[in-house]
Amino acid sequence: MTATVEATPINIPTTMRASILRKQGDIALEQVGVPPLDDDQVLVQVAAVGVCGSDVHYYEHGRIGDYVVDHPLVLGHELSGRIVAVGATVDPARIGERVAVEPQRPCRVCDQCRQGRYNLCPDIEFYATPPIDGAFTEYVAIQADFAFPIPDNVSDEAAALIEPLSVGIWACQRAKIGPGSRVLIAGAGPIGIIAAQTARAFGATEIHITDISPDRLAFALQHGATHALDARTDSVAGLDVDAFIDASGAPQAVRSGIKAVGPAGRVILVGLGADDVELPVSYIQNREIWLSGVFRYANTWPLAIQLVADGKVDLDVLVTAHFGLSEAEAALQAGKEPGQLKAVVHPGR
Amino acid sequence: MTATVEATPINIPTTMRASILRKQGDIALEQVGVPPLDDDQVLVQVAAVGVCGSDVHYYEHGRIGDYVVDHPLVLGHELSGRIVAVGATVDPARIGERVAVEPQRPCRVCDQCRQGRYNLCPDIEFYATPPIDGAFTEYVAIQADFAFPIPDNVSDEAAALIEPLSVGIWACQRAKIGPGSRVLIAGAGPIGIIAAQTARAFGATEIHITDISPDRLAFALQHGATHALDARTDSVAGLDVDAFIDASGAPQAVRSGIKAVGPAGRVILVGLGADDVELPVSYIQNREIWLSGVFRYANTWPLAIQLVADGKVDLDVLVTAHFGLSEAEAALQAGKEPGQLKAVVHPGR
Amino acid sequence: MTATVEATPINIPTTMRASILRKQGDIALEQVGVPPLDDDQVLVQVAAVGVCGSDVHYYEHGRIGDYVVDHPLVLGHELSGRIVAVGATVDPARIGERVAVEPQRPCRVCDQCRQGRYNLCPDIEFYATPPIDGAFTEYVAIQADFAFPIPDNVSDEAAALIEPLSVGIWACQRAKIGPGSRVLIAGAGPIGIIAAQTARAFGATEIHITDISPDRLAFALQHGATHALDARTDSVAGLDVDAFIDASGAPQAVRSGIKAVGPAGRVILVGLGADDVELPVSYIQNREIWLSGVFRYANTWPLAIQLVADGKVDLDVLVTAHFGLSEAEAALQAGKEPGQLKAVVHPGR
Amino acid sequence: MTATVEATPINIPTTMRASILRKQGDIALEQVGVPPLDDDQVLVQVAAVGVCGSDVHYYEHGRIGDYVVDHPLVLGHELSGRIVAVGATVDPARIGERVAVEPQRPCRVCDQCRQGRYNLCPDIEFYATPPIDGAFTEYVAIQADFAFPIPDNVSDEAAALIEPLSVGIWACQRAKIGPGSRVLIAGAGPIGIIAAQTARAFGATEIHITDISPDRLAFALQHGATHALDARTDSVAGLDVDAFIDASGAPQAVRSGIKAVGPAGRVILVGLGADDVELPVSYIQNREIWLSGVFRYANTWPLAIQLVADGKVDLDVLVTAHFGLSEAEAALQAGKEPGQLKAVVHPGR
Repeated sequence: MTATVEATPINIPTTMRASILRKQGDIALEQVGVPPLDDDQVLVQVAAVGVCGSDVHYYEHGRIGDYVVDHPLVLGHELSGRIVAVGATVDPARIGERVAVEPQRPCRVCDQCRQGRYNLCPDIEFYATPPIDGAFTEYVAIQADFAFPIPDNVSDEAAALIEPLSVGIWACQRAKIGPGSRVLIAGAGPIGIIAAQTARAFGATEIHITDISPDRLAFALQHGATHALDARTDSVAGLDVDAFIDASGAPQAVRSGIKAVGPAGRVILVGLGADDVELPVSYIQNREIWLSGVFRYANTWPLAIQLVADGKVDLDVLVTAHFGLSEAEAALQAGKEPGQLKAVVHPGR
Repeated sequence: MTATVEATPINIPTTMRASILRKQGDIALEQVGVPPLDDDQVLVQVAAVGVCGSDVHYYEHGRIGDYVVDHPLVLGHELSGRIVAVGATVDPARIGERVAVEPQRPCRVCDQCRQGRYNLCPDIEFYATPPIDGAFTEYVAIQADFAFPIPDNVSDEAAALIEPLSVGIWACQRAKIGPGSRVLIAGAGPIGIIAAQTARAFGATEIHITDISPDRLAFALQHGATHALDARTDSVAGLDVDAFIDASGAPQAVRSGIKAVGPAGRVILVGLGADDVELPVSYIQNREIWLSGVFRYANTWPLAIQLVADGKVDLDVLVTAHFGLSEAEAALQAGKEPGQLKAVVHPGR
Repeated sequence: MTATVEATPINIPTTMRASILRKQGDIALEQVGVPPLDDDQVLVQVAAVGVCGSDVHYYEHGRIGDYVVDHPLVLGHELSGRIVAVGATVDPARIGERVAVEPQRPCRVCDQCRQGRYNLCPDIEFYATPPIDGAFTEYVAIQADFAFPIPDNVSDEAAALIEPLSVGIWACQRAKIGPGSRVLIAGAGPIGIIAAQTARAFGATEIHITDISPDRLAFALQHGATHALDARTDSVAGLDVDAFIDASGAPQAVRSGIKAVGPAGRVILVGLGADDVELPVSYIQNREIWLSGVFRYANTWPLAIQLVADGKVDLDVLVTAHFGLSEAEAALQAGKEPGQLKAVVHPGR
Repeated sequence: MTATVEATPINIPTTMRASILRKQGDIALEQVGVPPLDDDQVLVQVAAVGVCGSDVHYYEHGRIGDYVVDHPLVLGHELSGRIVAVGATVDPARIGERVAVEPQRPCRVCDQCRQGRYNLCPDIEFYATPPIDGAFTEYVAIQADFAFPIPDNVSDEAAALIEPLSVGIWACQRAKIGPGSRVLIAGAGPIGIIAAQTARAFGATEIHITDISPDRLAFALQHGATHALDARTDSVAGLDVDAFIDASGAPQAVRSGIKAVGPAGRVILVGLGADDVELPVSYIQNREIWLSGVFRYANTWPLAIQLVADGKVDLDVLVTAHFGLSEAEAALQAGKEPGQLKAVVHPGR
């Protein structure tokens, strides 16, 4: 089904630089072929790529659960760029568009896809998840309807971070956060702060956030949260919130967060921690709390872009470091530094 | 707010017999006062009372969680009877009605009540939950709208068991079971079998049930279930059901049941087990499964009565033993015998 | 069930002034008895009462549909005040509280009430709807849980207008307006402007409003709407909005508004017009649009108060005229003047 | 994107017979090319095709609304058959499968498709809707995931009628019909009777049906309905049903049906009548009724096949006449005869 790239006014090279994770802890810049395009795809020249905790995890551990880096892999799945070529059935007028990329490819024909839950498609392909390459490179291919145009007032970095914002939106939607909601968020890292901003944009009026870093809590209070609690000393018991979003992955935070939820409340687990966690089941039963998680997202890009374009969510404020493609390793290590939230790689610089 | 009982053609005595749990393991028949009626209540002469696992638990352990039997308590909350008197604001024409009783009293003014989730009312009173007396006695008082008329083709015993059927309905409703659903139920005791019958009445086409008793499994296959699995030898992994209802309270059954649920499926925990249970959280996250419990029920009596009256659910088949009021202790112990499902106490015999 | 008013530090007179609609077009100030309190009620000294279109309609026509003013009636159902006495079962500590009043009394025992849809209770009593008196008077009685405390930063007038804000909230909730929604509102009167502000508070990003008054449209653009259209010249066809709220009651506006709705969109009819209206049924079918109306509201006061307290909705800006109780007739006629939006009666002045 | 048909053990001719509607009222058998297959399609040898009212309408009037027969058109969209060839990306093992065909082709990339509402896809192609050919022919092409395998106990005719059953399922799902529902259906033609059977399978306990034909009403009572009413003499006012499904398209039936709906009830308009219909809007508002229509269906085939396979819905009973492909004109006229419900064309006979 692959097709010749359309003739376009933009010159596309045949090879490109890519930062390759050869195996656990071993990353290097290599020259590889520019990906071919399927008929329904576009070729995106990558402008900015956010570094996600999962990228760091693959780099450090060589695997996440059942996904093992047993072949060379390109990391990076939070990305923006510019369309430089289109497949046979895509409107060539899209060439030149600045886009935020939804980095997944559902099959579109299974039950889950047909019912609109394409993120649960059993055959989905996702960037930077073995064996699918990601975006620490100059060019990527993506199906045309997963490349969303972004307005001029959204920066390349913010456009890349539409991906983690989508996680926050999906979490808030599943948590049924709306006008007047009272919310607890555990973890004031990038996802926690994005979730706080999103909850505020959704109309939540009380947004409690917990962390063990006073710096992160102070930052969160400036960007979405209304109340900050030090997880080492402050208790959330009795808050009786409508929704609890865990963005920490810490079992203890999950357990105490659940006990902060009121009758008929919702618990959404975003953070990835242990496979098995002891949960306060009788508490959940007695209050008829609904608990679930997020597995990526579906249909969130248009709203995410709008929230950023309208100034309701500020993603640029999360970016604390910039790197070139040859500095991918440094970018993956940047998050360890105090005060760092989100590193961005710029393949074109 | 208590009012004089209306003059009626039925003679109401001033005292009555009641089976009193004086303390853990100590139950005896006593003569007590007939309860006074509030304006909005009716007096029900009890015809049949089902014995529930919670009754047994109070009898054997003197407590369930924070609810402690520190004063004499009348057990029994699954009941039917006949209205013999009405409060000041209740239509006297209801005297003589055969009724199934919803054994709880919400405040009707809190946020939960006003939103229709009266089972989550923080001030709710529930029969046979300290310090509220239950129905192992001759007469009980209940607000008029919680005494539901039953048609002639529903027996006293079946009318009493509308209460556990309500648990099954509430579980199936929360599990979003509908036409074509594929369901797994853990535990083939009374609640499991009722849940299986209810799921079938709701249109489920595959109803798997697990237990460790071959007899119970065989019975379940005759009454609602389409597939039976021996929990000791058969695995439910990969069933990929739409909904899993735990009616066992066994942590291991809960864990393996969750792993039988497909994408976007629901898990409803009915059984009461340990306060804290280790759950496969990453499995829940990756499939975006929704997990919750049931805390009693709300607005289920009309549908429950209709399912029984229409023959879609057979409750009589669950009744395996009958006792008089003086035999309450024997009734509480009946469930230990092999082949026993549900004991019924008849205060009028 | 009426009870003696509790002894309190506030002196309650036995009679009070009330503006009585004796029959169509005939309104006069009279001295009447202060209403007695039921056990669960509070006595509210009225501070402010908004004039609603239905008040004007009763005054001018003596009826609305089947509701006929065949006995003297006190108008007014948008009100705030201060609790000056409490019924037997209400906490006396509430005396002195400033409150916004939800002016209806559901039965709390019917199917609709028990399911949380108490606004659809067939036995509901509503202020200023024959034969129930309203609030153009000095004191009113209301059940305690329908008198909601208001914070200091909410004015008496704004607290009175929590009632029409509740209509706007209920309409937006039923229209499923949320972050990113695109909305059309027909009619830039008080309800239309409140709906626009509410939609904005709910996260809507495009809020189109239509009217035939350029002044009202200009005002709407300053208070919630993002786009204004002159209903006499501008077409809304093809807008493809997610939701259309009619606050005009004009059949032509309803018809053209429906045709502005995209696939799976919602139409909520708030305005009261003719009993029967010709609707574009095949358009509704082909896009699977959901159409419904609002009948008052349920469970909206807490959110409404919060939106005003947080500054997300500005109700004070709607108040264009003030009157004393003796000027009720002038208040009812004030809305005819150009530039007038909402008249408020102050019984205490 | 079209591809060569895979080599298979089944011989596919290059031409086939097709019944062509050349223009209004002019239908004839012609020899045409067998349709080519796209990579994701299968070729189905048609076994049975039901005649739908829309087929008759195109034949008699040459158009339905904006859809005009201005080029020769093959009618027929209710069909079953056998897979005889597969496209390049389809598993050849499917050759030989008996299938029910969902006769539409959504784009899969628009907002509606991505959200699971593919029936509202603006670019959808639908069989026998100009300019897309239908199934009054020997072979049709359909994307593989819209050809659903059917078990042996489902006849070819019943498999063809999975299409109208899908309309009934979609209507019942949108009407939120479930256990204990009370339902009114207007019109005892094929769709009305299918809706009655579906409602019963969904657990509805009262199913009222109206028609002006005593014969149809008698038939309906035997196949799903619990109560029959003669629309000429019996009133439905006050029934207070939970849901009303119009399968008549008659404006008067729609109006009176709406007035039979209770608080918070649903109205689903299936029948196609006039573009504009006068509706009792204030009745809808005062009861907060939700009104919508159905536009075909989405994700209904699996459940429909299961309901038939399980014997919960009987489609064979609807078939009252059989025709060969050369008798398509007679088939289109068969419905005029008294006692006729559904004619079926068998292209292979």
